[in-house]
Amino acid sequence: MNWATLRRRLHTQLDPRLGPSGRLSDLNRILVFIIVIAVGCAIAETEEELTRGHAAFFFLENLTFGSIFLVEYVARLWTVAEVDPGRPFMARLKFALSLAGLVDLVTVLSSLLPIIAFNSMPLRIIRIVRIVRLARLGRISLAIRYISEAVASRRDELFVTLAIAVVILLVGSTALYWIEGSVQPDKFGSIPRAMWWSVVTLTTIGYGDVYPITPLGKAVAAIVAMAGVGVIALPAGILAAAFSDAVQRRRHDRHDKDN
Amino acid sequence: MNWATLRRRLHTQLDPRLGPSGRLSDLNRILVFIIVIAVGCAIAETEEELTRGHAAFFFLENLTFGSIFLVEYVARLWTVAEVDPGRPFMARLKFALSLAGLVDLVTVLSSLLPIIAFNSMPLRIIRIVRIVRLARLGRISLAIRYISEAVASRRDELFVTLAIAVVILLVGSTALYWIEGSVQPDKFGSIPRAMWWSVVTLTTIGYGDVYPITPLGKAVAAIVAMAGVGVIALPAGILAAAFSDAVQRRRHDRHDKDN
Amino acid sequence: MNWATLRRRLHTQLDPRLGPSGRLSDLNRILVFIIVIAVGCAIAETEEELTRGHAAFFFLENLTFGSIFLVEYVARLWTVAEVDPGRPFMARLKFALSLAGLVDLVTVLSSLLPIIAFNSMPLRIIRIVRIVRLARLGRISLAIRYISEAVASRRDELFVTLAIAVVILLVGSTALYWIEGSVQPDKFGSIPRAMWWSVVTLTTIGYGDVYPITPLGKAVAAIVAMAGVGVIALPAGILAAAFSDAVQRRRHDRHDKDN
Amino acid sequence: MNWATLRRRLHTQLDPRLGPSGRLSDLNRILVFIIVIAVGCAIAETEEELTRGHAAFFFLENLTFGSIFLVEYVARLWTVAEVDPGRPFMARLKFALSLAGLVDLVTVLSSLLPIIAFNSMPLRIIRIVRIVRLARLGRISLAIRYISEAVASRRDELFVTLAIAVVILLVGSTALYWIEGSVQPDKFGSIPRAMWWSVVTLTTIGYGDVYPITPLGKAVAAIVAMAGVGVIALPAGILAAAFSDAVQRRRHDRHDKDN
Repeated sequence: MNWATLRRRLHTQLDPRLGPSGRLSDLNRILVFIIVIAVGCAIAETEEELTRGHAAFFFLENLTFGSIFLVEYVARLWTVAEVDPGRPFMARLKFALSLAGLVDLVTVLSSLLPIIAFNSMPLRIIRIVRIVRLARLGRISLAIRYISEAVASRRDELFVTLAIAVVILLVGSTALYWIEGSVQPDKFGSIPRAMWWSVVTLTTIGYGDVYPITPLGKAVAAIVAMAGVGVIALPAGILAAAFSDAVQRRRHDRHDKDN
Repeated sequence: MNWATLRRRLHTQLDPRLGPSGRLSDLNRILVFIIVIAVGCAIAETEEELTRGHAAFFFLENLTFGSIFLVEYVARLWTVAEVDPGRPFMARLKFALSLAGLVDLVTVLSSLLPIIAFNSMPLRIIRIVRIVRLARLGRISLAIRYISEAVASRRDELFVTLAIAVVILLVGSTALYWIEGSVQPDKFGSIPRAMWWSVVTLTTIGYGDVYPITPLGKAVAAIVAMAGVGVIALPAGILAAAFSDAVQRRRHDRHDKDN
Repeated sequence: MNWATLRRRLHTQLDPRLGPSGRLSDLNRILVFIIVIAVGCAIAETEEELTRGHAAFFFLENLTFGSIFLVEYVARLWTVAEVDPGRPFMARLKFALSLAGLVDLVTVLSSLLPIIAFNSMPLRIIRIVRIVRLARLGRISLAIRYISEAVASRRDELFVTLAIAVVILLVGSTALYWIEGSVQPDKFGSIPRAMWWSVVTLTTIGYGDVYPITPLGKAVAAIVAMAGVGVIALPAGILAAAFSDAVQRRRHDRHDKDN
Repeated sequence: MNWATLRRRLHTQLDPRLGPSGRLSDLNRILVFIIVIAVGCAIAETEEELTRGHAAFFFLENLTFGSIFLVEYVARLWTVAEVDPGRPFMARLKFALSLAGLVDLVTVLSSLLPIIAFNSMPLRIIRIVRIVRLARLGRISLAIRYISEAVASRRDELFVTLAIAVVILLVGSTALYWIEGSVQPDKFGSIPRAMWWSVVTLTTIGYGDVYPITPLGKAVAAIVAMAGVGVIALPAGILAAAFSDAVQRRRHDRHDKDN
């Protein structure tokens, strides 16, 4: 096997789109696995109780994954010439400056930099951002397109229900600011503070760090909660229905194409 | 360009309905932007940590937005004569006394009054209420009509499910008042107090300021919660479905009209 | 107008079914209003802060509503003879021993007993139960029938999803009892205790009185929460869909009948 | 009635599938009842306040249910020969080593072991696991198959929405780790710690043990909560819709078969 054949085969293996069999290439499947493990390690690395006494492990882990991603990055740079065989340098530059190429480069650097230099919080966070590299792969990439379509198809409804949700948030915050502002100034003493209460209440999270304590405040909060909970859930419901429709339409289209 | 032409053009620009192109007029788009910024500033103004040392900024902000809204109000008063060119005074009086005209006047006053006099909490709250001025604009105005239609079309179901929700609220409150009333008199010592627990529980907010502590209270609360959560969500679900239907019907009607 | 005519007319007015015009009789509408006010007063009466210094008001209120309900009860006893004019005594006895008749009697007694004797908590609670008297009236009575139908039509799904919900509750409780039982014995020291955590978590109420504190407990709780939240919502979702179907079917049937 | 007839009849009674009448056999109905009671007792047995002073009751309870399950196990071992009358020993060995047979054996041992030896927590938990024995019975077994089908039919959507949910969880955790990590190191000091906050927030449980306290943290948490709550609910919604579809399809198929 000569270099040209190897480059062509490797390029096919690195191509993130689904192959003719409807599956990712074997190499990409291995890379998905490696990225998931690497992100898992990067998450674990932020917890001191796990890293204490295991510095060597995490040093080796970063070295290993960094090297793998470096090799992958070089391989992508080399094989991307297949896209435009007449001008290999231009194809490589285009890839290096594309979003995908920059994400790949940042992935490599975030793993290898702490080995030769320091290990700061931004670097740690960037190592977790590596998960976005999965976004370009076959099925996920398709899914992102369907979600974009779903949002676009319900633009009007989403906009209107979001506007209503914002108004209810504002009304709730203003009402509680008025009623409880002087009683609990640190919690309802301004509308931005009261908005934290509104968000926590209308999403039904209810941490319990802020809640009305006066009878009038409780009565108004009860009305706001009962009226608002359903309305705040509207945009999410519309998005869910639109996503479901988009998936059904895709299936239907595929079925039509097959017959 | 003489006064008559200017008045006609300005009137078209100030008209809150969607233009023939299905868009708001440019001037209204700018006004939407200004109102959103002005409401944002009014919200920020209630937070002392943001205003401290920035009194001049908020003074100028109120002066600026107040002046803009004053100019807009005068312009609307002037151009509204176009509606009934034969009796310009009557058209202006009608606008000045309409809900929209009064909201506009209050908007202007709430911004300019604190500059010449005092800045009280009611004035601050009225400045946030300016957001309702957006309600008369094209798409939002349409959306409000669809929501009204949706509520009207499911009047019966909404009434019945709301009645059931109220009964479950009452039953839950009465049960916990009976069981926990003597153990936690400040929290369950009366049915109005226990209703706060019911609302917070059945909307699944669960702040954690009130919860049963006796085994029997916990058992009954668990049953009320599991039975009630779904029922309390019914009116919201019906409203969401009705809204979704109204939007679909509108789209269908528009489609029929286009063909 | 003689007695016979009066009795017939009064009987028509007291009939809880919808009239030919699709509305409740005027007398029943007034009674609905009175019951709602009476229940509201009964709720307020349990709150000491509202009753303090207003004993006379609540004495009069109970006397008034008790007298009205007494008159109503006597009127129903008298007019129910219209159902079976040949045997008026049997018709009256049948009504007096029916569920509706007993509820009416209890309603009267719960209002008038505290005036001649004592005012205990059971009496107070029974005064709130008066709200169930509305259940026999036209639209509400119909709605209850539709809900019963909805439950019956999805008996299988409801049973199965309830069974799954119970199993998830049990699994979650058992897992947390195992993991956190020795760390927080007062909260997870037995499965019944851990079940309170499960119910509060899986309904997403989350009061915050019980939550895992060990890393393993948090990890398992996170998995239980994410897996369970959707499953616990299944029975409620199925019931909502069934209710919606029943209402749509009714509308459809009515439409067919009209044409 | 000779032994062969008894064995055949008993085998029919022990068969967990629905009979020709669409119902469980009478013996299985009794066993369902016994298992539910036995699991209830096993749950109660973990609560010291209930067992204190009732040791004899729980000793007898374990002896009774253990004996019943032992008799049942022996009966199943004996009658299973009906499946393959030519090789009774092989049929029995196959049953004894099947999942169902092992669960039955563990059920018996978990009840009888504490009587002759010690009563440890694992034994207590295994006694609760007896509830899974119901999984093989008629309707529940069908339901499990429909749920498996539902999951399989929406494999793609479930995978994609789960992936999105995981990404939002990661993004939320990383953001709050960055912002609040230095302010509340015990709660947001690492991404695994911040993930507990994310799960509790995005499922809308909101215990209140962890929440952001800085203004920036609250602003970001509000955005994550509003954006994430709907997305986290997507997989559950898809699963619910798929389950509902599967049940409807089953009903339709059955209807077609009947006609």
